[in-house]
Amino acid sequence: MSLYDLTMAEAAARLKSGDISAVELTESCLARIGETEGALNAYVTVTGEEALEAAAAAGKELAAGRVRGPMHGIPVCVKDLCDMTGLATTASSKVRHDHMADSDAAVVARLKDAGAVIVGKTHTHEFAYGISTPTTRNPWNTDCIPGGSSGGTAASVAARGCFAGIGTDTGGSIRIPAALCGLVGLKPTYGRVSRAGVTSLSWSLDHVGPLARTVEDAANMLGVLAGYDARDPGSVDLPVPDYTAGMNDGIAGLRLGRPTNFYFDGMDDEARGLVEAALAALQAAGAEIVPVELPLAKTYMAVEFGLCLPEASAYHEKELRTRADLYGEDVRTFLEAGELIPATDYIRALRVREQIKQGWAALMAPGGVDAIVAPTVPAAAARVDRDMFTWPDGEEETTTNAYVRHSCPANVTGLPSITVPCGFTAAGLPVGFQTIGRPYAEADIVRIARSYEATVDWSARAPDPR
Amino acid sequence: MSLYDLTMAEAAARLKSGDISAVELTESCLARIGETEGALNAYVTVTGEEALEAAAAAGKELAAGRVRGPMHGIPVCVKDLCDMTGLATTASSKVRHDHMADSDAAVVARLKDAGAVIVGKTHTHEFAYGISTPTTRNPWNTDCIPGGSSGGTAASVAARGCFAGIGTDTGGSIRIPAALCGLVGLKPTYGRVSRAGVTSLSWSLDHVGPLARTVEDAANMLGVLAGYDARDPGSVDLPVPDYTAGMNDGIAGLRLGRPTNFYFDGMDDEARGLVEAALAALQAAGAEIVPVELPLAKTYMAVEFGLCLPEASAYHEKELRTRADLYGEDVRTFLEAGELIPATDYIRALRVREQIKQGWAALMAPGGVDAIVAPTVPAAAARVDRDMFTWPDGEEETTTNAYVRHSCPANVTGLPSITVPCGFTAAGLPVGFQTIGRPYAEADIVRIARSYEATVDWSARAPDPR
Repeated sequence: MSLYDLTMAEAAARLKSGDISAVELTESCLARIGETEGALNAYVTVTGEEALEAAAAAGKELAAGRVRGPMHGIPVCVKDLCDMTGLATTASSKVRHDHMADSDAAVVARLKDAGAVIVGKTHTHEFAYGISTPTTRNPWNTDCIPGGSSGGTAASVAARGCFAGIGTDTGGSIRIPAALCGLVGLKPTYGRVSRAGVTSLSWSLDHVGPLARTVEDAANMLGVLAGYDARDPGSVDLPVPDYTAGMNDGIAGLRLGRPTNFYFDGMDDEARGLVEAALAALQAAGAEIVPVELPLAKTYMAVEFGLCLPEASAYHEKELRTRADLYGEDVRTFLEAGELIPATDYIRALRVREQIKQGWAALMAPGGVDAIVAPTVPAAAARVDRDMFTWPDGEEETTTNAYVRHSCPANVTGLPSITVPCGFTAAGLPVGFQTIGRPYAEADIVRIARSYEATVDWSARAPDPR
Repeated sequence: MSLYDLTMAEAAARLKSGDISAVELTESCLARIGETEGALNAYVTVTGEEALEAAAAAGKELAAGRVRGPMHGIPVCVKDLCDMTGLATTASSKVRHDHMADSDAAVVARLKDAGAVIVGKTHTHEFAYGISTPTTRNPWNTDCIPGGSSGGTAASVAARGCFAGIGTDTGGSIRIPAALCGLVGLKPTYGRVSRAGVTSLSWSLDHVGPLARTVEDAANMLGVLAGYDARDPGSVDLPVPDYTAGMNDGIAGLRLGRPTNFYFDGMDDEARGLVEAALAALQAAGAEIVPVELPLAKTYMAVEFGLCLPEASAYHEKELRTRADLYGEDVRTFLEAGELIPATDYIRALRVREQIKQGWAALMAPGGVDAIVAPTVPAAAARVDRDMFTWPDGEEETTTNAYVRHSCPANVTGLPSITVPCGFTAAGLPVGFQTIGRPYAEADIVRIARSYEATVDWSARAPDPR
């Protein structure tokens, strides 16, 4: 076992005890990145020297007993949608190859303040506008997509090139790659983590959050990232709790809603079976599984795309006028489509969104359920050459539609959602289930996710792409 | 002097003392409506019998010493955009002649709970989408518009058909008719008064508030109307103070911003002179008048119309598809225009609106000014056959543009604004100036408005249209 195989919590404990140094830990990760990057291509930039300098600085503080917190000295990666001083924020796009950042995104600054060691910037589907991240491969099977848009972060964290990383999630872009790469991914409540300095896809749906290998690590990283920031108009000024504090308190008596509609339609049998088993494990752990009908379910995708398309096109307007040829064809098509949507349709989407939010709030009101549990993805990672799924009932669906469909309710409602791995297909690919909670109740969904995680042990499995 | 000539505060005092009865007061108002309605046509419906029944019920309570508050037994009118059980909400439109209400709008329910006597429902410019209210005439000169869209409420309150009334304000529709009819009009902060049960024009710009003959009466009525309501998604859950409590505390040391741009451009000399005199009176009362440059002023009208047009068209979509011929030509043209606006333009308007809000917040931040004082209208009431103004510099402007221009900054920012009469033109038409304050600081702008009002006495002037 190598140092990079530790969890973040384990590594932090060993850094604190002086058993290992931050430089050793970072060297271990950089070496691992070196041996996997040829197969994965997870990174736009690996910050070798700077990372080692940051590690050395962290190491000095740690050696002096000054522990900043659970991420001090921990190697992490950052999706290349986030500004980091002195580096280009490429958004994995030719449009942005020269887009130098002269300050740190809020989340990058928070990681640095927490003493984390940023080992590099990871690939995204171009401008976060897609679910496959075509630059990058899945460490569990390099013939498969890592998911997207935070595919580089997911691939590297799963391959143990670092301990955790930053993703963004507009229609599933944290949770889809987390599920497809066997990770924990946490999309916080809208407003919980600042988006200042993060390239926007769709401002009313965009969220920033952690991907990690364990619930505890994701929760600790959320604690570092969360907090009010006046520079993000969506930011909410609420205190940030310790998200790990009640993590092991169990879920006896909790009422968890299992959707009777929307989620389990159009789904691979193998993935469904793994999610059903996870729900059974939650029940065995003391939760009550309650069937719930999700309100207005037929509108979720229309609202997701009805908001995302024009918001993205408004953001990209100038570039689309002046250098449209530099965009990939898929993203350019989306951006051009968004320009054709009338304001009245956008306003209707906003109005339906309010009704959806109210419906979900009613489901989770006192006397209702405490959270919703559902599959994160309708199937494990698609092969890179595949863009359609065929479901058991013979229905076909594009991979984009299928993956976004399961994620978008939490974007439309802004509710927090955490995905946790819940097993492997016969082909050895991971899938996950997600827990969606009340606004700002990240601590609750962490506890539910951790209660499930405590019932399983996948430690014998680890991808080794080379 | 008749009972209808009293202010609301005076009438309330006499009701409380038993000197007059609520039925006598209501009879006086109904008689006054009877003698002025031929000239004004302010009402869609006069609720004679029901009003007298409500007055009798109020009278019994008052006689028993149970005084509900400052509006108990007071005759008021309600703009016919607000639902009132058992009556059609016509919005002064053929589209709505059969639109029966089976419950009360939140503000109607609040008036009833406060013991107010609703004497009728007043004309609006069709669906509140205009500034002239063509059904109705100005009581100071019936060849002139009363302003709009709350023209019926303004005409009736000014003509002393009742003591105060409800208006709505999306681009000036409380303040424009208040100024043109010589009244106090108060557009509260966005979210302060519930819009549940009020026909929407543009949900992100719509406000509901009082028109009255004195600052005190408007402040007391706001106290009745204000408060949280979960049925209005824009409603804000903040305590409601007594808006009259500090009304007479004076303005010594307050810093009032006088715009150096936007407001005093494109303005009639006579109106400008009256507003300048009001600002001088504020200075004499102890305030410091500070020149301020309003941020992004060139964008206010584009943002106002860029939001209002598509929001209105989205609201009216179904009717526009099925019975467009029932709309007046002006409103139909606006609604059709709104359907042509792309979502990307709407989103840009939202984004610029945020910048405008931030700019105004910076102006009124600690160390800046306490409020902005500016003309409410660039000219007194236009003649009904006139749709253009010619300014002293020779520039021409439509009356719609001119009136909305001075009002819309408070709609775009959502900031509270109160207009107070500040004199009469040589032709005997009133004009007003407005005070725009910090969010939820209605008590502050009431105090400023009252401090000015205390320096003048227009009691010798009253319109008598018959």
